[in-house]
Amino acid sequence: MFVRNCWYVIAWEHEVPADGFFARVVLEEPIVVFRTAAGHWVALEDRCCHRSAPLSKGRREGDCLRCGYHGLKFDATGQCIEIPGQERIPRDMRVRSYPVVLHNKWVFVWMGDPALADRGMLPDNFSNEHPDWRYLPGYLHYDTDYLLICDNLLDFSHLSYVHEKTLGGSVAIAQSQAQIEPVTAPGQRGLTVTRRVPDVPPPPYYSKLRTFAGHVDRWFIYDFLLPGTLLMRSGGRPVGARPDDMSNAVQLHSCQTLTPETATTTHYFFQQAHSAQLDDPVFTQAIYDNLILAFNEDRDMITAQAGNLRRTPHARQVAIAADAALMQFRRLLERAVIAESQERAA
Amino acid sequence: MFVRNCWYVIAWEHEVPADGFFARVVLEEPIVVFRTAAGHWVALEDRCCHRSAPLSKGRREGDCLRCGYHGLKFDATGQCIEIPGQERIPRDMRVRSYPVVLHNKWVFVWMGDPALADRGMLPDNFSNEHPDWRYLPGYLHYDTDYLLICDNLLDFSHLSYVHEKTLGGSVAIAQSQAQIEPVTAPGQRGLTVTRRVPDVPPPPYYSKLRTFAGHVDRWFIYDFLLPGTLLMRSGGRPVGARPDDMSNAVQLHSCQTLTPETATTTHYFFQQAHSAQLDDPVFTQAIYDNLILAFNEDRDMITAQAGNLRRTPHARQVAIAADAALMQFRRLLERAVIAESQERAA
Amino acid sequence: MFVRNCWYVIAWEHEVPADGFFARVVLEEPIVVFRTAAGHWVALEDRCCHRSAPLSKGRREGDCLRCGYHGLKFDATGQCIEIPGQERIPRDMRVRSYPVVLHNKWVFVWMGDPALADRGMLPDNFSNEHPDWRYLPGYLHYDTDYLLICDNLLDFSHLSYVHEKTLGGSVAIAQSQAQIEPVTAPGQRGLTVTRRVPDVPPPPYYSKLRTFAGHVDRWFIYDFLLPGTLLMRSGGRPVGARPDDMSNAVQLHSCQTLTPETATTTHYFFQQAHSAQLDDPVFTQAIYDNLILAFNEDRDMITAQAGNLRRTPHARQVAIAADAALMQFRRLLERAVIAESQERAA
Repeated sequence: MFVRNCWYVIAWEHEVPADGFFARVVLEEPIVVFRTAAGHWVALEDRCCHRSAPLSKGRREGDCLRCGYHGLKFDATGQCIEIPGQERIPRDMRVRSYPVVLHNKWVFVWMGDPALADRGMLPDNFSNEHPDWRYLPGYLHYDTDYLLICDNLLDFSHLSYVHEKTLGGSVAIAQSQAQIEPVTAPGQRGLTVTRRVPDVPPPPYYSKLRTFAGHVDRWFIYDFLLPGTLLMRSGGRPVGARPDDMSNAVQLHSCQTLTPETATTTHYFFQQAHSAQLDDPVFTQAIYDNLILAFNEDRDMITAQAGNLRRTPHARQVAIAADAALMQFRRLLERAVIAESQERAA
Repeated sequence: MFVRNCWYVIAWEHEVPADGFFARVVLEEPIVVFRTAAGHWVALEDRCCHRSAPLSKGRREGDCLRCGYHGLKFDATGQCIEIPGQERIPRDMRVRSYPVVLHNKWVFVWMGDPALADRGMLPDNFSNEHPDWRYLPGYLHYDTDYLLICDNLLDFSHLSYVHEKTLGGSVAIAQSQAQIEPVTAPGQRGLTVTRRVPDVPPPPYYSKLRTFAGHVDRWFIYDFLLPGTLLMRSGGRPVGARPDDMSNAVQLHSCQTLTPETATTTHYFFQQAHSAQLDDPVFTQAIYDNLILAFNEDRDMITAQAGNLRRTPHARQVAIAADAALMQFRRLLERAVIAESQERAA
Repeated sequence: MFVRNCWYVIAWEHEVPADGFFARVVLEEPIVVFRTAAGHWVALEDRCCHRSAPLSKGRREGDCLRCGYHGLKFDATGQCIEIPGQERIPRDMRVRSYPVVLHNKWVFVWMGDPALADRGMLPDNFSNEHPDWRYLPGYLHYDTDYLLICDNLLDFSHLSYVHEKTLGGSVAIAQSQAQIEPVTAPGQRGLTVTRRVPDVPPPPYYSKLRTFAGHVDRWFIYDFLLPGTLLMRSGGRPVGARPDDMSNAVQLHSCQTLTPETATTTHYFFQQAHSAQLDDPVFTQAIYDNLILAFNEDRDMITAQAGNLRRTPHARQVAIAADAALMQFRRLLERAVIAESQERAA
């Protein structure tokens, strides 16, 4: 169940070498991305239209790619401009070109109708590239459907259990109630989820970030956007501190996004940025290390869950109140998929 | 082709930690077993009824299991008794509970209609727990259908070839005739197979057990019971010794059982017990080591056989006289499966 | 898409031990080959007709094979001649026997109707066994359909790109035109492909073979025969040398053949022989090492191509002029397959 008319992250900017290219499979389609000498981003089908060899097994020649099998050369629009040993080039000798844009360190490709590609739909992943924020970039590969990871990110009650020793630290997170509202961010479809957890012990990983004498008030406020992007402000401050007093608080902003590789595998790009101790790389590393630890806890659980679902795809599932956000999101997604198929049919 | 209304071994008792739990897949179903503080055995579906996560990825709390994903807590009957952050618990918020019983070191689960679970159908695996017998417990995992292993255990002519250098030692085993009769053990369906092999060299592994001056008379007398349990007395004595004179004999009792994990993978639990030299752990170890060696010979052959069957599932097979027991057993099994499906339909 | 009424190489002669046997899967069928004491080659179905165990897991007894599972013994015609413990042997207790012949170091099996097996259809792989030629034998396993490798061998334009640093060395190869004609070799179906590439730098690997002061004229002249055999004369001589003056030339003869293991995996047997420096094993080794290097370049590319085809089996492909030979060959193959199926129906 893929929405196609939207932006998917294919790579962190730094993954794409300046004079080379980078290949990933997105929504079952092999894609190769690079940046021209003039700095324009290019995303092409990573499959030569001659005999289906990946262009990424070939080489870059200026702003063109040459297939490494029989030497066909393609320009940045995907048009073949050279066939060794042959004068005439058939008009349909071209590979698909995808709209592509760099936006705050993430390279996005548009997987649907190119005519509908709209930069206004890019998520506000500002902390990926902002002078007041620091982070280390993260990537994980999942051997599961991306929807299971969406589910996970839409219900933070799991912090109390999956992340008891990392991000969680208290059952109060699971016992608290999240508010769910439609997103108001322009150009976006999704949900805004707000969860406040007053008067709890600081979570285990805070010990690396700041010393608290007693309990803290915690908050998690995020947009979860189609197709699978989380943008979150979260943090904790001493119990009793005024909401606008951040002088003794931990404050974080996180950008996370899921890109289906196939129906059963997923790319996960993420970071968690901080806006204090900007010049302390040890601090930045500590946040990153904790995040990787925690996200591996998620992956371990979700992979086990996927194993059970693979074994019995139609196992009975009973919903609980905490499923409200994930169920609303799955309905949003389903409606978007149906709407797209109706548009294509029209 | 699984019979469901019967007991399957899910674990050796020692595999289940006293204060924890143990999980295995049986007949395609994930199951977690544990023992309450009061000593009662519990077997629950290892799949949370909320979002299908394995309960075995969570933790034990007293006689309950708490799911490690969103914290739902289940009592020993499988009923959910706590949903974090939610007062009301839906009545159908429960996981399946299986009849389970410990019987002579094997933990059995009943995979069919719980109302039919009958301790009278447990096999007489006495040597698993008897003061006059010693053994080391064995377990092997097979990447094949359990029926191929049943076939193997129902025709000992293979000892002459597969186990030439371990359990066999003479072609006379294959040349001897087995007698096959219906089992008379109460509550059991299956076959009693008797094979006597007079005047043969002691098999290679006897050299670790006892010194024989010349040839021996060997015997193998076993019940092979639905769904896949072998209970066997076997041994060898000097040629000419009276059948009731065990003073110079090797005497063994073996309990072996097959539990289908899936249609193509199998759990194999086994032991071979001796009733002499009870206080000699080196002797016990020697029997175990030889058995592991021999059972790996079987697994190697049966896995190769399964490879050929996977390649050409409908390859022609021609029966021989030695197939009598395995063919009778497969018919028993087939009739039991058909009978169960008719009972369910009625 | 397999042609069956033809010879396929199952092994290099040296792979089959004199007093043992050798097993490979050919066209999805497991086969075991050996040579009798009298020197006759035997190829039998490697699957006991009793319970499908591979005979190659058993042992050789004289000119017979005994199954290692239950001890059935088969003679060199595939007839069962002994069933342990059983007097009568059913007439249909036999495994399939394949026509098999050793021809210049390659062991060929005939996979179709044995009545049609015709030694006149064996390819002229003379350099495999000729006093004037030297080589080291090669074998590679592919996880791809054999047709993709046929494609590769039928269009040498790929030498310029896949083998730029080994066999190629110049884009002129891709820019040159190949002549394609029906083969005239007796008993053969296939194409003769001739490619001449004048006035190019010697390819990188020539540096190990001979020193050239300047450019060379290169030639590649080969038959590509059903089901997938390449027989090639190739070489290079100083620009300006007369075609019949080989005194300063590199001259090679190559025999290569593809045997489908399954629809998606392939055995590749090959050699590249030289007729100069016959007594210099370092020279022979250098040619072999370069060939292995180059053939791994092919395998790497073709495996990546197969990955794309697996992902999207019906991806659009646009033909170019260089595809002429491979398209003609695929048509030959298709016609042969259709003809065979019509013959079977008739």
